[in-house]
This record gives sequence, structure tokens and C-alpha cells, in this order.
Amino acid sequence: MSRVEIVEVGPRDGFQPVGPFIPTEVKLNYVARLAAAGLHRIEIGSFVSEKAVPQLADTPELLFLSRDIPGLRPQVLVPSLGRGIKAFEAGAPELAFVISASPSHSQANVRRTPLEASAEYLQLLDRMPKDVRIRLNIATAFDCPFDGRVSAGTVRTLLDPLVAARSDVEIALCDTTGRADPAQVTSLFGDLMARFPQNVVWAFHGHDTFGLGLANAYATWTQGVRVFDAAFAGLGGCPFAPGATGNIATEDLVNMFHSMGVDTEVDTVALQGIAEDGCRIPGALIGGRVRDAIAAHRQLDLTRGGEPNG
Amino acid sequence: MSRVEIVEVGPRDGFQPVGPFIPTEVKLNYVARLAAAGLHRIEIGSFVSEKAVPQLADTPELLFLSRDIPGLRPQVLVPSLGRGIKAFEAGAPELAFVISASPSHSQANVRRTPLEASAEYLQLLDRMPKDVRIRLNIATAFDCPFDGRVSAGTVRTLLDPLVAARSDVEIALCDTTGRADPAQVTSLFGDLMARFPQNVVWAFHGHDTFGLGLANAYATWTQGVRVFDAAFAGLGGCPFAPGATGNIATEDLVNMFHSMGVDTEVDTVALQGIAEDGCRIPGALIGGRVRDAIAAHRQLDLTRGGEPNG
Repeated sequence: MSRVEIVEVGPRDGFQPVGPFIPTEVKLNYVARLAAAGLHRIEIGSFVSEKAVPQLADTPELLFLSRDIPGLRPQVLVPSLGRGIKAFEAGAPELAFVISASPSHSQANVRRTPLEASAEYLQLLDRMPKDVRIRLNIATAFDCPFDGRVSAGTVRTLLDPLVAARSDVEIALCDTTGRADPAQVTSLFGDLMARFPQNVVWAFHGHDTFGLGLANAYATWTQGVRVFDAAFAGLGGCPFAPGATGNIATEDLVNMFHSMGVDTEVDTVALQGIAEDGCRIPGALIGGRVRDAIAAHRQLDLTRGGEPNG
Repeated sequence: MSRVEIVEVGPRDGFQPVGPFIPTEVKLNYVARLAAAGLHRIEIGSFVSEKAVPQLADTPELLFLSRDIPGLRPQVLVPSLGRGIKAFEAGAPELAFVISASPSHSQANVRRTPLEASAEYLQLLDRMPKDVRIRLNIATAFDCPFDGRVSAGTVRTLLDPLVAARSDVEIALCDTTGRADPAQVTSLFGDLMARFPQNVVWAFHGHDTFGLGLANAYATWTQGVRVFDAAFAGLGGCPFAPGATGNIATEDLVNMFHSMGVDTEVDTVALQGIAEDGCRIPGALIGGRVRDAIAAHRQLDLTRGGEPNG
């Protein structure tokens, strides 16, 4: 059976826009439950300005406290050389370095041009210990909240020197605004996979703002992508990209892949419980459909006769 | 530019499960606005038992009243020979004859076996005036609420004599429960299109219960399907298929195709207004994401700089 890896980004991308501070022990409990449900790779937070994202100010503490969670591969987002160094010095085993393809979003998000951010990424590669893993998150790879659609050429030009410097990297193309469509993701991934036939591992980070999260994930999968970001309960959004609410819900993505006969190693019953609880986090911005569909079917006490017959 | 045809089924599949009776003049107004927005082909109701579906008891009247709506191609659902005859005698220019692939759903829905329903369809073909158009709706073509997944062989066997009797028919495969997945729709449409290379026009009728409506529509489109059913505001559901709430929202489907550069001839601004009003129909079961996303962006007064750049 084929399989995909789902990177659970709820504790970072999902919690980030939540107003009321989620206590560290509550975050820790979600991370532990998600890992126990089979979501071993979790973006637990980010090393960013506490002023810009107060919700994630406790990421160093959470990183420390989560060290004993069985099977957990914690990942943290970093937006600069300085934050990257802080992250691996704090013991982060895996960094996600974010660079925006669009100049306007790059300025709004990290107050750097894409080229300046790229230069810091290259410096970080030199400074990082060899045993720390890194992935590249290309934000606004498809569409920018300020400038509109981003061309494939923009992403190609951005990636050329980065892949040349290190080709055995994981690169996540991020649909920050949720405005990418299946034809565009098919085209951009196809284009980049042909241009960079090196050891790049490709990943897709989608948002469901316009309901296209699963359609885009499916289209991406048909191109051969096998790593997908998602957030339980469809939590998410980017405070710097107005209207960009809603990551793909992990439970929706897992349901799609399982229906297709693609394994995720995720325990759907456990995930359903975590997603239902996630909806009740004060201030949570939620999304997805599978959670409510399962709850409705449970309420109807629907008993389906036997196993699927083919 | 390539294009697709969207069949607006909100006034039938969307209104059907709504409890409080929607006055005929309100229905007529929605049909007129939808047609004016470019959705010329509309399933305006069904000829079924008034006891089973009291909401659609006024279909004959609506059919009569809608005769002067410019550009409208009204379609009505019929579940039997008798109802089909009533429909064309009442002046319906286009019938959608429904047959369930799954025996259990067929019994629950029309109290006939699939074979009995097929026999009535064949008799209706003989009795119908030549100028009345017909499409076949294969309900539960992918999954049955009672029996689970439906095999491709079941659908093939059902269609063999029906396509042999009349090959220039439109056949809509209906994902009644919303449990179909992109791999399954790709496989079943591919299988049937290879088996019946005649003049069949293929259509997809999806539900979004598990958030897979657009992913399935996209997968279907990649197979060459160019006719899609959808309901404005994501209205819908089947009272005989527990939990099967939510057709694909027309505004979500239109947004996906337009993003992909595929024309629908639908005026998205007009559709947004109709969808927002549709949400306020007392008792409406709504779905979709684009409507709220557009409303949120409008509220944020988000101005996107210029045209998409690539």
C-alpha cells in the first residue's frame, strides 16, 4: 500500500492566530495526543518575535517539555538566521525556514526581501550542526494576498541558488492564501520537479480558504508529492495574510487518503477526538468537514452493513 | 478557453430536504436569478410523491411559471415511468431519470429494485416524445448509505442494457453519500468511458459531506467530464440517505474552474448574492466555503493589487 507523510502543523499554524493564550500544558497535551494518534512529525511552534506572535512565545519551553513524547519529531518554524541559530541552540532537531516568494508578503511577514531571506537561509546552512534537519517553506508560492497570483518563474528564480547550495532538502510549496487551484499546483510542482531532479523532497502546505485544500492536495499527490502539511480541526490562518483562514484539516486529508487506499499511519478515531476538542479552544478558527460529518453519522447511529464490497 | 456546463440543482436537491415550505414565488425568483447569472440549465424540481417530498409538491406549477424565464433550460427529476409521463405531459422539456445502483438505496428511495427501475426507464424511452431530452442519474454509483462502497461491476452491469437501448444519453454518476474519493471517481469514469465509447455525455453529481466535492469534481474533469451538478449555497442532501448533507456549492465549483482558466459562463458577483440569500432560507442546510471567504474579504476591504501576473 502506498503511503504519505502528514506533517501536523496545528500547534504552530493553527494556534498562531488564536487570541487567548493557550497554556503551555494544554499545547503539550495536544502535541502528545497527536503524536500518539500517529502524527509523529509535528510543527510545535516557531522561533519568532514574541511581540508579533505572542501565542507562540512559549515554543522553547514546549520544545523542552515535549522531548520525552514517544516517537515525536518536533519541527519549529524559523524566519531568519538569528532565529534559526536560537532554535537549534535550544535543541530543535528540525527547522522549517520560511521564505516568501512574493516581495510584498516577504516584507509584511519577515521585513526582508526574498533575496535577503535567501541569503540568511544559505548562512544558516553553513552554521547548522550536521544532525539538525531542515526544510524550506516557500510561502506565497502560488498567490500573494497583496500582489495576486505568483508566477512559476518567480519561484524558479528563488529556488535556483537555494537548491544549488543544498539539494537534499525538503521544500514545501505553501498556498498561503488558499487561492491556488488544482491546475496551478499540478503545473508548478511539475515544472519544479522537472527543473530540480535532485534529491529534493517535495511537500505541499495548503489552506482551505476557498474550499480547494483537498482538491489541491489530490492534484499535488498525482504529481508524486508524498509529504503534506495539515492542521487538526482545520485550525489556522496567517495573521499577515488577511482572509487566509484555515489550513487543510488533518482529519479531512487523512480521510481522503484512507478512502483512496493510501496509508497515513494515523488513528482516525483518536484524531476525531482531538479535532473535536480542538474546536473548543477559546478563539480557535476552525475548518474542515469530516469532523462534523463523522459526528453527524454517530448521532444518527448509522450502521453501515458490513465491509465495503469493492 | 475550455469550458464546462454546470447544472444548478439547488431548486431540487437543495430545496428538497428543507422543512418549512418555500413559497412557489420565492422558488421562481431563485430560478430566475440563477438563470440570469448564467446558470441556464436548472433542475427546478421533481415529479415525486408529495407525501415523500412535500417541499417539491409545486413542481408542476413552478414548471409552468418558469416558462418565460429567458434562456432557462428547466430539468425535472423523475423516479418512475408514471412520473416521467406526468412530467412530459406537464411540459417538462428535460427529464432526469434516477436509478440507484445499490439495491438497498433503490428500495429506500423508489421502492423498486435497480432492474425494475431500469425496465421503467426503457419503457419511458419508448413513450417519450422525440423532442424531450433525457439524462440518467445513477444514484449511489460510488457508495451506498446502507451497503457501503459500490463496485464498478455493479454500475457496469446496470448500464449495459441502458446504453445499448440509447447511447446518445447524458449519464450523471451521483456520489449520493459524498464518500467517493478522487481515486475512485477517476477509476470508475475511466472504466465506463472505455466500456461505452458511444455518444454518452458523462456528468458528475457530487456531494461535499466529507469535503471531497471539489477534489472529486477535479478528478472527474481530468477524465474528460464536462458537465457538473452543483447547488448554490451548498444546499442539499437526500432525506433517504442519512448524513448525506451538502451538494457541491455552485460558487465553490465556479471559483475552482475560473481559477483553473475554465469558463462556466456564470456571473460570480450575481451568484455570490444569490448564495448569500440562499443561506437565509428558513431550514436551509448549507455548505461550501467560497461564499464566506468572499464575504470575509469584502469585510476586510482587501484590495488586491492589479491583475494576476502569471
